[in-house]
Parts: sequence; structure tokens; C-alpha cells
Amino acid sequence: MSRHSDTSADSGPSAGPESAQALAERAVESLYVRDRASQGLGMRIVEVAPGRASLRMIVRPDMVNGHKICHGGLVFTLADSAFAFSCNSHNDNTVAAAASIDFLAPSFEGDELTAVATELWRSGRSGLYEITVTNQRGERIALFRGRSHRISGTVL
Amino acid sequence: MSRHSDTSADSGPSAGPESAQALAERAVESLYVRDRASQGLGMRIVEVAPGRASLRMIVRPDMVNGHKICHGGLVFTLADSAFAFSCNSHNDNTVAAAASIDFLAPSFEGDELTAVATELWRSGRSGLYEITVTNQRGERIALFRGRSHRISGTVL
Amino acid sequence: MSRHSDTSADSGPSAGPESAQALAERAVESLYVRDRASQGLGMRIVEVAPGRASLRMIVRPDMVNGHKICHGGLVFTLADSAFAFSCNSHNDNTVAAAASIDFLAPSFEGDELTAVATELWRSGRSGLYEITVTNQRGERIALFRGRSHRISGTVL
Amino acid sequence: MSRHSDTSADSGPSAGPESAQALAERAVESLYVRDRASQGLGMRIVEVAPGRASLRMIVRPDMVNGHKICHGGLVFTLADSAFAFSCNSHNDNTVAAAASIDFLAPSFEGDELTAVATELWRSGRSGLYEITVTNQRGERIALFRGRSHRISGTVL
Repeated sequence: MSRHSDTSADSGPSAGPESAQALAERAVESLYVRDRASQGLGMRIVEVAPGRASLRMIVRPDMVNGHKICHGGLVFTLADSAFAFSCNSHNDNTVAAAASIDFLAPSFEGDELTAVATELWRSGRSGLYEITVTNQRGERIALFRGRSHRISGTVL
Repeated sequence: MSRHSDTSADSGPSAGPESAQALAERAVESLYVRDRASQGLGMRIVEVAPGRASLRMIVRPDMVNGHKICHGGLVFTLADSAFAFSCNSHNDNTVAAAASIDFLAPSFEGDELTAVATELWRSGRSGLYEITVTNQRGERIALFRGRSHRISGTVL
Repeated sequence: MSRHSDTSADSGPSAGPESAQALAERAVESLYVRDRASQGLGMRIVEVAPGRASLRMIVRPDMVNGHKICHGGLVFTLADSAFAFSCNSHNDNTVAAAASIDFLAPSFEGDELTAVATELWRSGRSGLYEITVTNQRGERIALFRGRSHRISGTVL
Repeated sequence: MSRHSDTSADSGPSAGPESAQALAERAVESLYVRDRASQGLGMRIVEVAPGRASLRMIVRPDMVNGHKICHGGLVFTLADSAFAFSCNSHNDNTVAAAASIDFLAPSFEGDELTAVATELWRSGRSGLYEITVTNQRGERIALFRGRSHRISGTVL
């Protein structure tokens, strides 16, 4: 969350886009510090904006399956965390209702994966998010689409 | 993999259904011992049959996300491992091409989740598998559907 | 809707399961008579129950695509109608939020397709339905899964 | 297929991008003239390129369901035809293996829907395509994703 400290220092009581940016950063930071799963898997936040989040994770030896490739579930988990951070960036408590993933290429121990989540659509309590997972060479590893459902309460 | 040792002791050169069962158990065992991800997440094999696998996992403190529920990615990962073991149970190297999941209910730290994978369809290099994840009270947590793609080589 | 007239004649003010059955039949009948698309494609209702509907359609010459097989969109449309009738059978106005389909085998001009929809899960305003499409030999043509969203109002 | 006649007049034995464009147009034209389903639903081809196709369809009175909105199956069918034309534009016989759709907004009798298909990925016999359906005001009606499977033979 590279620009967190700078931006939040400026964002005080101002309205408009900067405020939405600061709110997104604070909401995601708050979720992240309580998210033991994402932290335990070594995910780092690269960027946050309203409806948008980018995460990075290195494929560790304990993330590899019996075919010697990164377990597809952990590729999904990285994308799912980026999905969660992007759909909670508006500060409304939001959970995943459904998701689908297409696996395009394998990834291997030592690869650094980046998941970029963008908001495709939001209406009422529902939202759709697209997450692209790439490796350190920019090759696409997986495409993920998530459907979110807003529940009661706020993140902060 | 409850009946592994008994069955494999009997399975030598015999043909027919027992052979398919023994082959399934040996192929899944072989994958499981190399699958550091599934082992690291504490997954245990409950049952294996041709085209079928059942796994169990306890939701550990390090599997919980910022909403204090099991990270959806790890529910997916459990289902995905059951999917992998079921589609590789025919001893042909097989990987996930795509998967989708519907999250029906949250699960919590300490819950014991069971994923049961069944083969819906197989044709050419493609297959479809349905995985149901339940908790220790038999409540459905998630429904997962996976599309497999057979690649070259055998598991054993 | 084979048993509609018999059952509705009996169903008057009774409570319990028969009442849910009669309500399902009346709600689906009401939707069907206004559903010009399903009628125009020659779909016939075979069976209705609460959360359940079965439809039949013959693949006409004008339903075939450039590969000389039934257009996948029309296989989907048959399944989608069965989905709509099953999720509206509780008499609450309900629409499709999302759906996915796996095409297992082609169907051809003159084939008679049957779509059977069953309710997998319902909670709050959301529901999940599984629809299987088979041909006249009982061979599976497609598997369809739909996510429903209840809106305001009732069917009747 | 706006530039069909001009381009094909030029395309004779030339190599490179122009040839791929001409081949795409001829392959799609060949499929379209045999596709009684797409024609019967009034679909018109707006644009074709390698891996890309755009179609338009007016929602007729016989395309409306019991909720007085365009039947979701026919929105899917429009997207599915655009998918088919885009994935067959390389002149290899290709069919749909699976597809999913998210319905974002209803459409109504008289609306003109446009489906734009783009190729996301292609590898071996598999491909992924994204199709966006909009109405005459540019509002998004549905997002469709299709997985293609190349079979034997060529379109032309």
C-alpha cells in the first residue's frame, strides 16, 4: 500500500476523490492487519484505490502441489484476497458470494505472482470484480471473476 | 485413505474393479506425499475411489480473514485438492483448467471442513467434477465445480 | 404441467405440502402464459413442484447453427426457462443474476431435449439451481447452474 | 461485416495481417450463412476481425419472458453467437466447451442489443473469450465469458 502514509496525511477532512482514496486505504489496511490468512501466505499490498487492489505473493516451497506447480487453490487465494480488498475498499462490509477462475499457465516455486483486482460493476448489494494474476515476467497465470455481496456494517 | 494398505496388499496383477480401486489409492497416495501445499494446510485424505476423493481440514487460526471467517480461498483450496485427487485417480496426469465456487455459509476457526469430490463427466481430455464442502454439523459451506484437462504422462 | 388441472381443482384452501404444490403450479402457469419467448421456442412444461421444473423442447430446423448442431444459446435458453420456472415456483418474483453452462455433447435437428431444474440452496434473496439437459436417449447434453435474485412483488 | 467485400477483393494470395483479416471475414461469413438460429433471431454482423466479432439484435415481442423483459437465454444466445464467430475466425472448427454470464440490467422489447466478443487467451485447443452486451444507450446488459474447444477440420 505504497502511498498510504503520504496520502492519508493529506486527506484529513477533504471531500471528493482524495477522500475516497484515503478511505479505501484505511479500510484495506484495517482488513489486512486482521487477515491472518493473507499475511500467513506472505501477501503484500502493492496498491489500493476505490474498487481496486493489487497484491503480490512469492510461491514458497510449501505452496507447491504433487505436479510440482503452485497449488491452484493458492493462486485462487491470492486473487480472492485482492478481490476482498477491492470490494471492501468502499468501507462497506462485503463478502464473496461466488467466484470463478480460469488457469492459463502454471507457476513454480520462487515465482512472484501479482494479482490486480478491478471493479467491473456495482449495483445494490452486488458487485462484480475481475482479477488478473501474472508472474514476474508479466505472463498471465489466471483470470478470476468474483461476485460480491454487501452485508451489514462497515469495515472501519 | 482408510483402506489403502489392505487393498494395495491384494492388488498385485489383478484386473477389473478392484484394480481400479487399488490404482486410485496408489495414484492419490503418490500425489499426496509430494503435495506440500495440501499437507501444509493440514488436509487429511478420508476416502479415495476411482473418480472420487474426500478430504478433511480444520480451520486453523492462520486461515481466518479480516471478517473473522475462514478465508474463502482456503475453502476453495480444500475443494481444489479434493478435485485434483479425484481427477488424478485414474492415474493420468490431470490439471485444473477452470473452476467455480459458490459460497453458501461462512466457516469459523476450529470448524472441521470436509470436501467430497465426485466425477460428473469425462470425455477425451476433459472432465467435470462436483465438490461439496460441509462443516462438522453437515451444513453446506460451498459448492465447487471444476473442469479438468488431462496432460501427458501418468501419476505413478 | 401434466397434473395442473387435477391438482388445482383439489387444492382450494388446504394448507401444507399440497398448497405449496398448487401455488407452484399456478405461479409457473401464470409466468408461462406471459412468456412469449419460451412459447415461441416450442417449450412445453412437463412437471412443476416447489423449487422444481421440467421442460421439453424439440430442436427445430431454425435452431441449428453453422456447425449443423443445436445452437448452444438455445440449449442454454431451455435450461434458463426451467431455471426461471423453478425459482419463481415459490410465487416471489425472482430473476437470474448469473448462470454458467458446460456443454457435454452436441444435439441435432429433431432431437427432443428435456431440462430438469432442481433447487440446490436458497437463503435471503439468493438461490442456486442445477439444471440438467438430456436428449431423447437420456444422454446428457449440458449441465447448467443458475444464481437467482428475488426482487419485489409476487408472480400471481 | 462492414469491410467484407472490399477486403476480400484485395486479399488474394497476400500474407500477413491483411490475410488474417480476410480469412476471418470469409470464415465468419461462411458460418453465418449456415447459421439458421442466429439469422432467425435477427442477428446482424457489425464487425469481424481475427479473434473478434460484433453482433447486433433487436429485442422482438417474441423474445420477452413472463417478467416483460428480454429472456436471459436470448441475451446469452446473442453473446454466444458473437463468441462462436470470434473463436471460429481463425478458420479452425471450434465449439463452445463452457460459458458463464452475469446479468447486469434487464432489456426490453424494442431495445437494440450489441455483443462485442474479444479473445482473451488461446493455447493448444482451448481459448477464452469475453463478450460484453450493451443496449442502444451503451448501458451494459450482460458480461459473458466463454471457453472454446477446437475440434478437427476447418470452417472454409
